[in-house]
Amino acid sequence: MILRIDRIQTEMPPPSDPDPAGAAVVQELLGGKFGEMSTFMNYTFQSFNFRARQGARPFFDLVSNIAAEEFGHIELVSTAINTMLTGSAGKNDLPDPADVLNPQHFVAGGAGTLVQDSNGKPWNGDYVTSTGDLVEDLTHNFFLETGARNGKLKVYEMVDHPAARALTGYLLVRGGVHQVAYARAVERLTGADLSKLFPAPRIPTDKIPECKPHIERGEHLKLYRFSPSDYHELAAVFNGPHPETGDELQVVDEPPEGFVPYDLPAEEGVFAPDYAPEEIAEIARKLREKAGLSDEPTGVVADES
Amino acid sequence: MILRIDRIQTEMPPPSDPDPAGAAVVQELLGGKFGEMSTFMNYTFQSFNFRARQGARPFFDLVSNIAAEEFGHIELVSTAINTMLTGSAGKNDLPDPADVLNPQHFVAGGAGTLVQDSNGKPWNGDYVTSTGDLVEDLTHNFFLETGARNGKLKVYEMVDHPAARALTGYLLVRGGVHQVAYARAVERLTGADLSKLFPAPRIPTDKIPECKPHIERGEHLKLYRFSPSDYHELAAVFNGPHPETGDELQVVDEPPEGFVPYDLPAEEGVFAPDYAPEEIAEIARKLREKAGLSDEPTGVVADES
Amino acid sequence: MILRIDRIQTEMPPPSDPDPAGAAVVQELLGGKFGEMSTFMNYTFQSFNFRARQGARPFFDLVSNIAAEEFGHIELVSTAINTMLTGSAGKNDLPDPADVLNPQHFVAGGAGTLVQDSNGKPWNGDYVTSTGDLVEDLTHNFFLETGARNGKLKVYEMVDHPAARALTGYLLVRGGVHQVAYARAVERLTGADLSKLFPAPRIPTDKIPECKPHIERGEHLKLYRFSPSDYHELAAVFNGPHPETGDELQVVDEPPEGFVPYDLPAEEGVFAPDYAPEEIAEIARKLREKAGLSDEPTGVVADES
Amino acid sequence: MILRIDRIQTEMPPPSDPDPAGAAVVQELLGGKFGEMSTFMNYTFQSFNFRARQGARPFFDLVSNIAAEEFGHIELVSTAINTMLTGSAGKNDLPDPADVLNPQHFVAGGAGTLVQDSNGKPWNGDYVTSTGDLVEDLTHNFFLETGARNGKLKVYEMVDHPAARALTGYLLVRGGVHQVAYARAVERLTGADLSKLFPAPRIPTDKIPECKPHIERGEHLKLYRFSPSDYHELAAVFNGPHPETGDELQVVDEPPEGFVPYDLPAEEGVFAPDYAPEEIAEIARKLREKAGLSDEPTGVVADES
Amino acid sequence: MILRIDRIQTEMPPPSDPDPAGAAVVQELLGGKFGEMSTFMNYTFQSFNFRARQGARPFFDLVSNIAAEEFGHIELVSTAINTMLTGSAGKNDLPDPADVLNPQHFVAGGAGTLVQDSNGKPWNGDYVTSTGDLVEDLTHNFFLETGARNGKLKVYEMVDHPAARALTGYLLVRGGVHQVAYARAVERLTGADLSKLFPAPRIPTDKIPECKPHIERGEHLKLYRFSPSDYHELAAVFNGPHPETGDELQVVDEPPEGFVPYDLPAEEGVFAPDYAPEEIAEIARKLREKAGLSDEPTGVVADES
Amino acid sequence: MILRIDRIQTEMPPPSDPDPAGAAVVQELLGGKFGEMSTFMNYTFQSFNFRARQGARPFFDLVSNIAAEEFGHIELVSTAINTMLTGSAGKNDLPDPADVLNPQHFVAGGAGTLVQDSNGKPWNGDYVTSTGDLVEDLTHNFFLETGARNGKLKVYEMVDHPAARALTGYLLVRGGVHQVAYARAVERLTGADLSKLFPAPRIPTDKIPECKPHIERGEHLKLYRFSPSDYHELAAVFNGPHPETGDELQVVDEPPEGFVPYDLPAEEGVFAPDYAPEEIAEIARKLREKAGLSDEPTGVVADES
Repeated sequence: MILRIDRIQTEMPPPSDPDPAGAAVVQELLGGKFGEMSTFMNYTFQSFNFRARQGARPFFDLVSNIAAEEFGHIELVSTAINTMLTGSAGKNDLPDPADVLNPQHFVAGGAGTLVQDSNGKPWNGDYVTSTGDLVEDLTHNFFLETGARNGKLKVYEMVDHPAARALTGYLLVRGGVHQVAYARAVERLTGADLSKLFPAPRIPTDKIPECKPHIERGEHLKLYRFSPSDYHELAAVFNGPHPETGDELQVVDEPPEGFVPYDLPAEEGVFAPDYAPEEIAEIARKLREKAGLSDEPTGVVADES
Repeated sequence: MILRIDRIQTEMPPPSDPDPAGAAVVQELLGGKFGEMSTFMNYTFQSFNFRARQGARPFFDLVSNIAAEEFGHIELVSTAINTMLTGSAGKNDLPDPADVLNPQHFVAGGAGTLVQDSNGKPWNGDYVTSTGDLVEDLTHNFFLETGARNGKLKVYEMVDHPAARALTGYLLVRGGVHQVAYARAVERLTGADLSKLFPAPRIPTDKIPECKPHIERGEHLKLYRFSPSDYHELAAVFNGPHPETGDELQVVDEPPEGFVPYDLPAEEGVFAPDYAPEEIAEIARKLREKAGLSDEPTGVVADES
Repeated sequence: MILRIDRIQTEMPPPSDPDPAGAAVVQELLGGKFGEMSTFMNYTFQSFNFRARQGARPFFDLVSNIAAEEFGHIELVSTAINTMLTGSAGKNDLPDPADVLNPQHFVAGGAGTLVQDSNGKPWNGDYVTSTGDLVEDLTHNFFLETGARNGKLKVYEMVDHPAARALTGYLLVRGGVHQVAYARAVERLTGADLSKLFPAPRIPTDKIPECKPHIERGEHLKLYRFSPSDYHELAAVFNGPHPETGDELQVVDEPPEGFVPYDLPAEEGVFAPDYAPEEIAEIARKLREKAGLSDEPTGVVADES
Repeated sequence: MILRIDRIQTEMPPPSDPDPAGAAVVQELLGGKFGEMSTFMNYTFQSFNFRARQGARPFFDLVSNIAAEEFGHIELVSTAINTMLTGSAGKNDLPDPADVLNPQHFVAGGAGTLVQDSNGKPWNGDYVTSTGDLVEDLTHNFFLETGARNGKLKVYEMVDHPAARALTGYLLVRGGVHQVAYARAVERLTGADLSKLFPAPRIPTDKIPECKPHIERGEHLKLYRFSPSDYHELAAVFNGPHPETGDELQVVDEPPEGFVPYDLPAEEGVFAPDYAPEEIAEIARKLREKAGLSDEPTGVVADES
Repeated sequence: MILRIDRIQTEMPPPSDPDPAGAAVVQELLGGKFGEMSTFMNYTFQSFNFRARQGARPFFDLVSNIAAEEFGHIELVSTAINTMLTGSAGKNDLPDPADVLNPQHFVAGGAGTLVQDSNGKPWNGDYVTSTGDLVEDLTHNFFLETGARNGKLKVYEMVDHPAARALTGYLLVRGGVHQVAYARAVERLTGADLSKLFPAPRIPTDKIPECKPHIERGEHLKLYRFSPSDYHELAAVFNGPHPETGDELQVVDEPPEGFVPYDLPAEEGVFAPDYAPEEIAEIARKLREKAGLSDEPTGVVADES
Repeated sequence: MILRIDRIQTEMPPPSDPDPAGAAVVQELLGGKFGEMSTFMNYTFQSFNFRARQGARPFFDLVSNIAAEEFGHIELVSTAINTMLTGSAGKNDLPDPADVLNPQHFVAGGAGTLVQDSNGKPWNGDYVTSTGDLVEDLTHNFFLETGARNGKLKVYEMVDHPAARALTGYLLVRGGVHQVAYARAVERLTGADLSKLFPAPRIPTDKIPECKPHIERGEHLKLYRFSPSDYHELAAVFNGPHPETGDELQVVDEPPEGFVPYDLPAEEGVFAPDYAPEEIAEIARKLREKAGLSDEPTGVVADES
């Protein structure tokens, strides 16, 4: 079971110039083979399918807990894509077909994220590896995070929209933590020492300007416990020195506080959320009133002004 | 962001006779077009992509919150499949190929759930509809729940393993609540009255024995708020009489308590979690010790004895 | 069984400036999840699979007959795409790769329509929902037409080539009739009143300039009977007031007269129909002669001059 | 444009013993690479995409007209599958999962045809080849019919249900006509003589008992014109001796009369068309009455008694 | 470029009792995500795409050379499947649909291997990872071989046909060599020591009876050079002690001698190679004669008698 | 089994201006339905699955041998794509998203070939037809080569990069030989005369400037034997006059000598083979030294200077 919190894991910039072609490229981090849908779903189903989990509890807790963090990552990638598409689909103002890479952002979706990769191919369940064999699944996860880091670095290089850079800067740091976590898990189970495999690809994360603030806050060392009550035993695996910096890894016994997302504005040209969104707002106001709720919306969003 | 809790939303039976062919059929409820991956991912991405959400807050809160409950549903379907596969892959004791419907349960997975439908076809992102148009997305969601109810009823009829029946009995009741919720949302937005569309398919849920205990506890009327802090405005949409029974719909201001899952035993024939799982247990014990955690596993699982 | 008529359902403009990128976007209306292949195939297979159809004859006739009209829609979308590609693949004059969205229009097809969506993904049978449950299938069809209307509106906004506008102007009106027809069918079966769901999306069709001439001819009210002999009982469902205008719906007891298509010229650069099409014409002339047919082609096509 | 007639192209037997596994195999003839969806859609889109068609009219008419006949073939394959599934999904009487090959016949469909092949893989638009090059497309069509004949022969051998045998007996004869038609078209265009390629595979059709009655009626020599008004020039291509028998090929200037299909009964276990189909019948009766139609259903179906 | 040799890499048994269901399961080793098509194609495309290969020559040679061996593996898996299907499709003697798992073995193929996995899903290019980053691609290859070993072990357990056991016995040994080779390559590049990851899964290969003869011949230590002229530098990577046995790894400077395959007999029920294969043999004899070749076939095949 | 040679079948130009959009179009010749993966895999699996091959040895040898040449074709297409991508992904210098057609060339691959078509859709095993029926498979192969020739001609027209032109110029000549070979095989088996089908499409190969040098060397007449020891009987099929030129077809009893490929330089912007490839070179040098190999790389590559 999960509980959901209406915040995002890092601060994202407000919409600026729209960048539909760049948004299409960022889709790779959502629905590509090494995208966040893959990390989220691999760890989620591995945790569901985990047999004899009591006996292997530290590993079960680790996989289950990282799965929870990954939900926040598909949320962040979507936030970046949606931010980059904002302003591209105003009334009578859709982009020229020749200027987009993924037309479905406009003619299927509502200037919104699709469950696809950068070529417009849908993510699919084949990207999930859940063999049940613990050593193999953890080895897989280490490799998956390596591939994910590669993809993030390349998207960072190819797309320079502020939302893409904020996204990749954060995900590189957090994905790096997961890469370390799975390497450590393999080490604990087998006795192998994988520390010399870091960094992979062989570009230190701290060379990337957008990563630096996160590293300065120690985000590259921390594994948050994303549960009000469970998964305590991950601390039995996630410890010891960071393979690159030598700093001690830390388990933070609560989730990060998170950030308030921007309320991305309507794109009337694709009827999102409607051709006349103010009518919906009026209906909502009346429903709140009738239900005895506050007059104003109770959700908290970032102030764009 | 999410927090995760190591419990499942309803009580599931312990493993009994294995039923690989039945488990293959239950996969439809996981990865089929109308399965729980589809409901989970549709509502999740619709919530990520929701534009001008402050103005439409009651609807945003409703979709976001139901998404959170759906995570628990993919967990439950997986639990049922894994329970049905338990006992089928002992050491030197895999099923005869002629007796299975989905060989990948054994030669790709570890007697565990696959992200596939009942024909072994992977779930894919094309099953997600997120047009951004609020009326359309809500209409879609109502239809999606109708299709999901149809699938659950048919799986109920075709598979009589206790785990499948416990699963479908529960999901029919909870899916029915979501069907009502989306119908109500469409009604609130448009003024249409969809109550006469219930039940769809036209078999009352309370005719099904495995549904009755849940109905008796009022589970067909309640929408739980799956958040420590957010999504309060769903109460502005989810209210009024239930279209079938006339009872008043209720918002429960916290998640259900949940149930402790069984720790499904190792299936050594497919190395899940290993050919010699006791070695993993010994490693885990030492890791806990070294980390200063308790000697025994801290996770809580149901007692099979 | 079907009979085929060598005419198209609405008047389409002659080729003008080629627009390969726009043509790629229009593919969404052919092979997208909510495109015309989906409407055609959903209703066709629902009619094939219809059990106890005598008892439900008015509904069977409705679905079967609309299926027949939909064949004309895949024909029209193809006509639009082919018109937009005309002039783009002359001898030694193919477009620059950087200027196209779907290269297969040229390197797989012959400047012709592909059975794909706007991302170049092939249409597939998963887009067909035929559950057998009549209420559910009709509910699905209503939703499918809602999604199709959304897609048509967005393609209308994004692509301004005259052929695309003529196409979407017509399809919006006719698709709107089908949306009404399925809503009415659901109403007849269940007693629900869906009229307030119109228009969905909430843009009145008569606001769109290219729709107006069709509306003025009453095309938004008529369901044609596309059969020399059958499907009379659709009149038992398709009647009453139009949910938006209040005008009385009409069954027209014959198909529309249709329009003569343009004979789109050869594109020698992709060998369609040949690198030297005049040789084929000469062969054809001789074959006609030998078979005792007329000297000139007997087919009727629009005069481009 | 098409008109639709509520009859099928050959006589099919009434339901007898259900055969779900056999029905799953027959799906290959519907949605396989060489199935009838492929023949129908290849010729349909080739006709839509046909450039400079006036100059090549005899070939355009041939392809367009055969496309029309193929609609009747997807209808026939569906009829066979549905007949074979009849009786398999009664109330509380679905087949055991271990006895089926395609569970979606029951848990997705309503004991009805799916747009899939015999492995449950959806048909997709990649199976359509429409290069625009006339010689190549006709060569492709000849090969496609060769592959289709191979598939029909193998399904004939593997499935002995009366509906499957009636289906393959008829389709082998009619598909053979199309194979000849496309060979002749290639011969007319290029001067090559393909007659020695027949039969392919090298089993004479008249060796198959279920084909004989059709051959005796000359069905292996006739190309019907499936149009009230068009496609006359196919006679300029389809003439001369049959490559196997030497008999003169014939163009029949009207469609075949067709046969009345059975009204396959409800399968209440999968809610097709409802759990209580008699209620639908009562609604239908009232709708007819209100619309001033006859009291009894006007459709004509075969009498099963 | 390649040269091809008409021999197979290990000795395979002659056909015995047919086992269609088992053959369907063995398909996982051909077309599954971790099957031999994946290993063959991953290494092949990585070698094609290898940039700055002169500077990284030992690694380029290693990947290129293992790719060549993998061709022999798709050949061996096909040989096993075809052997298991032999005898299942005689004249008028195809298996009952209810007894097969993959009907396309008979109605699409000719009792022959399909490019599919054990669920009948086609292998696809998404299974190829070729990022260009050398450390990552080698890490991937190590993981791919780990997954492949897992699959082989499970197929070994599930399918006991002699051809399947001969296949898996051999492939486990050879795949194990590749797993070591890629681990060693990663070690050479990064300095990490992966030896403690072996065996993965944690079942020693020498526990498996069908592996023993190969191990006794030292096949678990040797990397053959599959080239008349190239790839000499693999010896710079593939050396040192075997991580499990401690024996010294060896480069064999020529390919293995190979074994003569059985000439699997015709299956006339599926027209493979024809309904009357003796006619083909007679044609072949005449062609040889006319071309001045020997009277008897020149190919060498194993004697089944 | 195969042996591999580190040379390519024709001379390819060195890298010049990068052309990412053109490279995306050339992918059609790699992973399209009629691309070289399809020819390679069709003939390879047909040879594996060939039953009663001794009796049909000339045909078995022909198919097996052409399969071997096709490996060289996927290598050449990859070489062309990689050459066209060279220079596009330097440090901090990736192309603008709006200028590419296939973003995965950069964010998934390392400026390298993907196993995809020109729309970014992965090649899949469905493109392989291996029915076992010899006449049908050979007819299919003739058609496949016809489709492949069409694709090559169109890519030739659309993409004018020197590497694309060198590629298509060569492949048109060699694919033409295969087209002739399969036509001849069908003729030998059936007695039909297919010579008038050439050329298909109806553009003579010798009209294309980039084909002329190959034709002048007689490459359009020769079938090389790609085996040190086997496949001698192909000479019993491949003989007689070329259908277009009348020149005698020739079997060359050894493979072509081949050409040395360029060592395409690193693309550091996508870490291919690394962000700092000189470090890899240093490691390689040391490994060679330690293994007693030469100080300099032993591979032979073309000199770009």
